[in-house]
Amino acid sequence: MNGAEALLESARQGGVEVCFANPGTTEMPLVAALDRVRIRAVLALFEGVATGAADGYGRMAGRPAATLLHLGPGLANGLANLHNARRAGTAVVNWIGDHASWHVAADAPLTSDITALAGSVGWVRTVRSAVSLARDGADAIAAAVGPPPGVASLVIPVDAQWSEAAAPEPRAPGRAEPAPPDAGAVARAAALLRGRRGAVLLGGRALGQAALHAAARIQAHARCPVFTETFVARHERGLGLPDFPRLPYFPEQARETLSGVGGLVLAGAKSPVAFFGYPGQASRLAPESAELTTLSAPHDDAAAALEALADALGAGPVPPPADRPRPTPASGKLDVAALGRTLAALQPEGAIVVDEAATSGLPWSGFAAGAPPHTVLGLTGGAIGQGLPCAAGAALACPDRRVIAFQADGSGLYTLQALWTLAREALDVTCVVCANRTYRILQVELARAGVAEPGPAARSLTQLGPPVVDWVAAARAFGVPGTRVTSADALADALRGSFAEPGPSLVEAVLGP
Amino acid sequence: MNGAEALLESARQGGVEVCFANPGTTEMPLVAALDRVRIRAVLALFEGVATGAADGYGRMAGRPAATLLHLGPGLANGLANLHNARRAGTAVVNWIGDHASWHVAADAPLTSDITALAGSVGWVRTVRSAVSLARDGADAIAAAVGPPPGVASLVIPVDAQWSEAAAPEPRAPGRAEPAPPDAGAVARAAALLRGRRGAVLLGGRALGQAALHAAARIQAHARCPVFTETFVARHERGLGLPDFPRLPYFPEQARETLSGVGGLVLAGAKSPVAFFGYPGQASRLAPESAELTTLSAPHDDAAAALEALADALGAGPVPPPADRPRPTPASGKLDVAALGRTLAALQPEGAIVVDEAATSGLPWSGFAAGAPPHTVLGLTGGAIGQGLPCAAGAALACPDRRVIAFQADGSGLYTLQALWTLAREALDVTCVVCANRTYRILQVELARAGVAEPGPAARSLTQLGPPVVDWVAAARAFGVPGTRVTSADALADALRGSFAEPGPSLVEAVLGP
Repeated sequence: MNGAEALLESARQGGVEVCFANPGTTEMPLVAALDRVRIRAVLALFEGVATGAADGYGRMAGRPAATLLHLGPGLANGLANLHNARRAGTAVVNWIGDHASWHVAADAPLTSDITALAGSVGWVRTVRSAVSLARDGADAIAAAVGPPPGVASLVIPVDAQWSEAAAPEPRAPGRAEPAPPDAGAVARAAALLRGRRGAVLLGGRALGQAALHAAARIQAHARCPVFTETFVARHERGLGLPDFPRLPYFPEQARETLSGVGGLVLAGAKSPVAFFGYPGQASRLAPESAELTTLSAPHDDAAAALEALADALGAGPVPPPADRPRPTPASGKLDVAALGRTLAALQPEGAIVVDEAATSGLPWSGFAAGAPPHTVLGLTGGAIGQGLPCAAGAALACPDRRVIAFQADGSGLYTLQALWTLAREALDVTCVVCANRTYRILQVELARAGVAEPGPAARSLTQLGPPVVDWVAAARAFGVPGTRVTSADALADALRGSFAEPGPSLVEAVLGP
Repeated sequence: MNGAEALLESARQGGVEVCFANPGTTEMPLVAALDRVRIRAVLALFEGVATGAADGYGRMAGRPAATLLHLGPGLANGLANLHNARRAGTAVVNWIGDHASWHVAADAPLTSDITALAGSVGWVRTVRSAVSLARDGADAIAAAVGPPPGVASLVIPVDAQWSEAAAPEPRAPGRAEPAPPDAGAVARAAALLRGRRGAVLLGGRALGQAALHAAARIQAHARCPVFTETFVARHERGLGLPDFPRLPYFPEQARETLSGVGGLVLAGAKSPVAFFGYPGQASRLAPESAELTTLSAPHDDAAAALEALADALGAGPVPPPADRPRPTPASGKLDVAALGRTLAALQPEGAIVVDEAATSGLPWSGFAAGAPPHTVLGLTGGAIGQGLPCAAGAALACPDRRVIAFQADGSGLYTLQALWTLAREALDVTCVVCANRTYRILQVELARAGVAEPGPAARSLTQLGPPVVDWVAAARAFGVPGTRVTSADALADALRGSFAEPGPSLVEAVLGP
């Protein structure tokens, strides 16, 4: 076999089943090898779609995702969503083709510093030869799987792909074994919660079902507030699950929320900091006087750690949370509250909701506590354009679940090419586009910066029209059926129709001018 | 004034008139300042559109282009087209907002290594304070303008933007003064051409009108072959201008073209190398025995150098080239030959043709020698997705000229959001999409790699359907009127209609299944 085949065979043994690809000439041996090794190839029309899909797939599949990218520019196009994957702690392996080893020095047009780019999101290695390729590939998967899990990039000269190589030695599939609870950390957290005004912040893997139930035991016993972090990698929510308030986005509100806290136990979360720095405001959100202690890192087994903490506190079992009333669909005018309520009312059990709805998504988040059990995938790194690709990847990982791409329009336009992959792969994804036709958050930020009356330049840079983007036409362009709705009732009808039909569809919910 | 205003005032003095922007929270003071300093702000829905437009603008305007980008992920999204700008030698200044200086250490979600990314495409500096910002900005423009011209990035913490600063000291506009001809280089080139089997390769600034006429003098006197490089930053072509054969793309053909050459004078070009490395083939395209000598670097005043060379050779004046027959529009079946002939027949005088047509563009290139004078902007760095953005920028630089985005469909899908900027700015751009619905070049490369019968994975990774992309719907989504044509006659009608109307339009020329 050649190096490309050895790499893919090694990756298959390492647990890779899907490769999100946008290849070019320097990846041809790998493209050809995909037909000889059982790894599913999924084409993206843009690399940001491939990497965002890999992130969504990895978050849901519990196995490493792979991408196939074309030299430095192809990697560059995928970096923003790799940044989000890094922040989410998703295991993603990038296979990046490079010029033949002897051709790099010629400085041909596509030559650039690939390792500088790849190094900005995690582990990187440049392959020396076909002989080492399978081993390098296994090392890349091991680096991606962790712990801690993250992004690993292999730069693969095309001659290493096409040259002769031996079959890889069998290896067990890569799987992150999360660290068991640390007794000292548990004791420190218990002491802190036994003190005055202790609180718990849940993040990372502490947003899974078992961890949430353990947190409910702790809350009931210690009578302490429990919060969830603002941007979640993967959060199990809905009826039957304990639900805790989310730390607000704006730092003033987050500080107010935490103002009474004397000590904060970090379970899967880092010390909370402001998303952006503002004049005269510190980065840290917890009170300066508050003691912080880490119970578990984001990738640790948070459920085990929280259960150990509950036991250490002497907390008994708690009954499952009382059923919250399921919201009913709204009627009449369509605004963000009606949108959130209607979506929460109708979303099917087991839905995976990719939440990149930005300012339009807040009401939904409240209503959804009363929706059937579902999984929320959030924008972990702030690099917008993650929602539609992430939804594609999540759908590939979980073909028996409905995926809802709850999508702000401005952000969705970054990577709308993902619609095509939804259509090609016939994925059960409902795209709900919140068409407020502005960068609303920037209008808010302008006001926060003291610009009460934006001039024409500032207005033009924060408004998405004219021309208004026609999302139904955009969906049609990529083979996805679409509907535009301007009332809550029409939204409900469109959602019911979409959830009842297999395959992708798009609902443009008009919220703006 | 604050730092943001000082920066923009300094940039205006430095010759910056347009800023291609996709800002976020860390750029709000600069957004507000754009309303107080006379620099035109042009919004792009994706950063790759902003940077590609800056490249097109800079190639045509002869003044530095500016972009406004949001932290590391925003820069990452624009890197591919900055790579092309770097390869074109276009003066582009990036203003990249960053977290407040004290907030970087908090490792908030959007934090990443911006300088590593920016350094991959050229000069980079992180601003220390508002006080130095105007000066840093002037230095960035000087670095971008050169010589050599290129990409320069300024990373600007938001507190340096909002803090108080002094007005910048007046400075003369940045302008690259190209180096005068080097007498030694001229003498070496003359000696080489006086020898046996000399040839000239034109690239960079040697593709302007005066340089082409000087090259014609040299050719007539020395009876040597003259070639142009394969991918041009800016090439003046058409009736009244000398025309020289282009070096072929595939290395076997390029080597064959150069096989009889004993010495090669490089005017604005680098030593030609293969675009990709192939098994058993060297990078260099000129014969090993050929002597190479550089008359002028890509950014030098090639016209002066070629005139000096012509004088040194004792070459007299030459009459303007005989009028080549203007092609007539094709009729009947639409294929790449009919497409190229019809476009060359109808393109208006003074058109700017952004050629990212890839395999579909070759016949046009031949026919266009007989078209009225026009300017060709090519894909200099091989990072696809450059065409539509570049067309937007060229149209902003030259509002009195028709711009034709001659666009391969696969490449166009990378940055189709540029269509929206065409509509918003009402730019006179005709998009001709070559809809062969495949990555044709990859199918060719698969065959070259010996894959005679691609399997399902390889086929799926090189075919753009199903679903077939509906470019007319995509245009409508972004506010651009579109037409689909399936015959040469319909293409001619659509082109005539587009050229007669102000504003943008799109023609989907169906060439595939």
